[in-house]
Amino acid sequence: MQSKEQIQNLVKEQADLVRKLKAEKEIKDKIDQEVAKLLKLKAQLKAIEEDDVPSTKNFVLKAPKGTRDFTPEQMAIRKSVFQKIIAVFDKHGAETIDTPIFELKDVLTGKYGEDSKLIYDLKDQGGEILSLRYDLTVPFARYLAMNKISNIKRYHIAKVYRRDNPSITRGRYREFYQCDFDIAGVYDPMIPDAECVRVVYEILDSLHIGNFTIKLNHRQLLDGMFEACGVPTECFRAICSAVDKLDKSPWEEVRKEMINEKGLSPEVADKIGKYVQLNGREKLIGELLADSNLTKSKSAVAGLEAMKLMLHYCNLFGVSDKVLFDLSLARGLDYYTGIIYEAVLQDSTSEGSVGSVAGGGRYDNLVGMFDPKNKQVPCVGVSIGVERIFAVIEAKAAASKMKVRTTNVEVFVASAQKNLLEERMKLCTELWNKGVKAEQSYKKNPKLLAQLQHCEEYQIPLAVIIGESELQKGVVKLRDVVSRNEVEIPRAKLGEEIRKKLQEINTPMLNGYGSKTN
Amino acid sequence: MQSKEQIQNLVKEQADLVRKLKAEKEIKDKIDQEVAKLLKLKAQLKAIEEDDVPSTKNFVLKAPKGTRDFTPEQMAIRKSVFQKIIAVFDKHGAETIDTPIFELKDVLTGKYGEDSKLIYDLKDQGGEILSLRYDLTVPFARYLAMNKISNIKRYHIAKVYRRDNPSITRGRYREFYQCDFDIAGVYDPMIPDAECVRVVYEILDSLHIGNFTIKLNHRQLLDGMFEACGVPTECFRAICSAVDKLDKSPWEEVRKEMINEKGLSPEVADKIGKYVQLNGREKLIGELLADSNLTKSKSAVAGLEAMKLMLHYCNLFGVSDKVLFDLSLARGLDYYTGIIYEAVLQDSTSEGSVGSVAGGGRYDNLVGMFDPKNKQVPCVGVSIGVERIFAVIEAKAAASKMKVRTTNVEVFVASAQKNLLEERMKLCTELWNKGVKAEQSYKKNPKLLAQLQHCEEYQIPLAVIIGESELQKGVVKLRDVVSRNEVEIPRAKLGEEIRKKLQEINTPMLNGYGSKTN
Repeated sequence: MQSKEQIQNLVKEQADLVRKLKAEKEIKDKIDQEVAKLLKLKAQLKAIEEDDVPSTKNFVLKAPKGTRDFTPEQMAIRKSVFQKIIAVFDKHGAETIDTPIFELKDVLTGKYGEDSKLIYDLKDQGGEILSLRYDLTVPFARYLAMNKISNIKRYHIAKVYRRDNPSITRGRYREFYQCDFDIAGVYDPMIPDAECVRVVYEILDSLHIGNFTIKLNHRQLLDGMFEACGVPTECFRAICSAVDKLDKSPWEEVRKEMINEKGLSPEVADKIGKYVQLNGREKLIGELLADSNLTKSKSAVAGLEAMKLMLHYCNLFGVSDKVLFDLSLARGLDYYTGIIYEAVLQDSTSEGSVGSVAGGGRYDNLVGMFDPKNKQVPCVGVSIGVERIFAVIEAKAAASKMKVRTTNVEVFVASAQKNLLEERMKLCTELWNKGVKAEQSYKKNPKLLAQLQHCEEYQIPLAVIIGESELQKGVVKLRDVVSRNEVEIPRAKLGEEIRKKLQEINTPMLNGYGSKTN
Repeated sequence: MQSKEQIQNLVKEQADLVRKLKAEKEIKDKIDQEVAKLLKLKAQLKAIEEDDVPSTKNFVLKAPKGTRDFTPEQMAIRKSVFQKIIAVFDKHGAETIDTPIFELKDVLTGKYGEDSKLIYDLKDQGGEILSLRYDLTVPFARYLAMNKISNIKRYHIAKVYRRDNPSITRGRYREFYQCDFDIAGVYDPMIPDAECVRVVYEILDSLHIGNFTIKLNHRQLLDGMFEACGVPTECFRAICSAVDKLDKSPWEEVRKEMINEKGLSPEVADKIGKYVQLNGREKLIGELLADSNLTKSKSAVAGLEAMKLMLHYCNLFGVSDKVLFDLSLARGLDYYTGIIYEAVLQDSTSEGSVGSVAGGGRYDNLVGMFDPKNKQVPCVGVSIGVERIFAVIEAKAAASKMKVRTTNVEVFVASAQKNLLEERMKLCTELWNKGVKAEQSYKKNPKLLAQLQHCEEYQIPLAVIIGESELQKGVVKLRDVVSRNEVEIPRAKLGEEIRKKLQEINTPMLNGYGSKTN
């Protein structure tokens, strides 16, 4: 047999010959003959190329590292969580936008500090150099600058990509959803900032995933505190990131890191230690404003005044019971410039501590990085940690042993005897026309037992059963799948009887994963 | 000033020194002194690295070629379309799944023929070699094979990626949504296939985008027809793809291609021409079954019998008025093995002809390509061409000059005088607690006119206005934004009065883009 290359050459030669004959206006029969040869050669080549394709059976079938497929059960939970979150965004008048999954690489460059190494790049296949988005905040800032939008309240729910090492940082994935709510615009202090807290409060409240606290702090206060304690300016970031570890490590360890790794003197570290162990509400702010060491720093005073206003507004928005001013809250991202938030679940589920389920803050300088005239659009926003929330709810669903419904089918159309497929199809059509969610077996002659088992498996509340005698009488049997009660209904009244029955039994629908567990 | 490399070297030397001193258990003061030097060097290096970052202001701000951002107006239309489509999937009992945006490159290899060159590859950053998904069908087949799922009815709405040349193929994008409904499982002939037609019918009907036809054909009939006309077997694919052009080109052009490029004799081409110009319903099938030339081919007879059953089921499902058996329908993808569908809009909008808005077919051999034992899971499905549907609806919305609502805000909380921010905040809180969708200005002392203009711009139906006198009397003014009528309402009755008023004026909400235009 000839090799692929040999045949490729023959195809080329033959094509040249055909072109030549055509150019020379050779007689048609002659050309046709050579064209036929060419086509035969091309077919041979195609057959070889098809054999060439690497068999897909030689590799392990899997989703890429750090990513997952989602089953119908998981998707049912996700849909339900997203609906609840969107309902809150909607209640607060947010619009939504979308941006591409990838950006020009330059858009992402220089925004994530040392985490930039986690960015997924696309292969250079000619044309623009692209990377997958790392978060939704930078694309949002790019969108605002590009479209010269100076104010918007928007939410964006979409997947982002980080080449994190999923086996090291447990529970982290390389593809995951972010769920962001941001308010951009030049407004008066702390008014949009406080609404973000209210939004987080309403979302966590509506999800029924346990008791939570929304911790608040302020970048200016952190900077002022470091200044007052004698931290050299160039070390602010490093010390800030050490403080950020206080949610996982005890003070003693963080202190050691500050002294041994970051080079602070023990005295300075101990001063910081005194502050970062403080948390409280209005009273604490009063005490700190009376602290002459701290109030040497203008930045600290500004931060404290802002925090005072914030707590006042949180009061007016009815969320003070969950809000805590916490001096240990630091948050890693460099772009925050004002208030910072983090919501933590207090209850630990059987899965152990969950930790942060929302976070965010004010970033007034990011949009300006994209504007040719450095025009700033101040922004404040919060990101809901939906992946952690999904994990909590999945664990709850598993623990409750309640099977999650994955469809909303109201009625299964079943037949008690053979040869009734056409009657079932007519009945389905009647129900669909009436807006009833209905399905049937795709088999011509399914067994009645198999049909009823399908109803139980998918928790379909009602079955309509037809047999020869029902057809003759112009009735159907309406069966309550759980109680197994059956009643005969005149066919003409089927629609209304189904509606009535569904109201009586009040079945949890797909998106009511929690209607029994909540 | 020292270069970055010089400082990097100094940092390295100094770090080595510190390590050495620590190893030698040098006295603390000495170590601290050297650590301080190290920190200073590190800070210097960091400052240089930050300057190093390419300025984002040196490049044109844009979304990558072939992709788009979506504005709130576009997203409002998209949300509304998706909701209607999902409602139909839901009515037919479909579950939903999700898969990662990228797959191992090997999963996609050999599935798309020559279109494989349009696949986006990710850069090799170590680890697995990945590509962005090209459609949702191949990931679905991978999911079924990997999880050994032998039957499922699922929909999947997600973005797919093709490095097409958007300027050449007009209206095509490199990132776009697909919206697929598929039924997998070993079932009786044409029962799930007919339900797919019903699903397309319900979706296009519910979207009110114009009159449509769902064209049907069968791969076995096409093959049989080619066989009966005397097309050499190795040319079936090439001739099939020529036939596929009949929706855009007249027969004369396609005929020329068949003869001049694909090497068919004019006689064979004319025989094909006779068939592909036929379309009809049951009567046509009868005629073709009486065509002794065609019925020489077993494949043609099988295709015709299948089509006959299909039309019968379409009848029972109440969709015959839109269904047309059309022998010119071919569809490009290689993996189809049975029925093929394509829905076309008949009306042309002001934007010109829209063409195909849904398509699909049966693919019984794709899942087996992923199974180590080649176990087949027969599948049939349809993909809704949502991007074209969006374009039609956006054009309609633009033509109607009706502004699309982008939020669902019911009530705007306004103040008529200065210094009422806190009262507005309390009122917002009251409304949010009652589940009312409400917003206010983020300014401390906004002008009343500006507040009312915001209501008109965002089509917020109601405004609640408070001033000193209203506060004293315990009332609020409730303003109908369109009619500008105002009534005084006791504050205690505000919730119910708002509900009443909203029902009276029946404002179109965000997802009712079409409630007036449909």
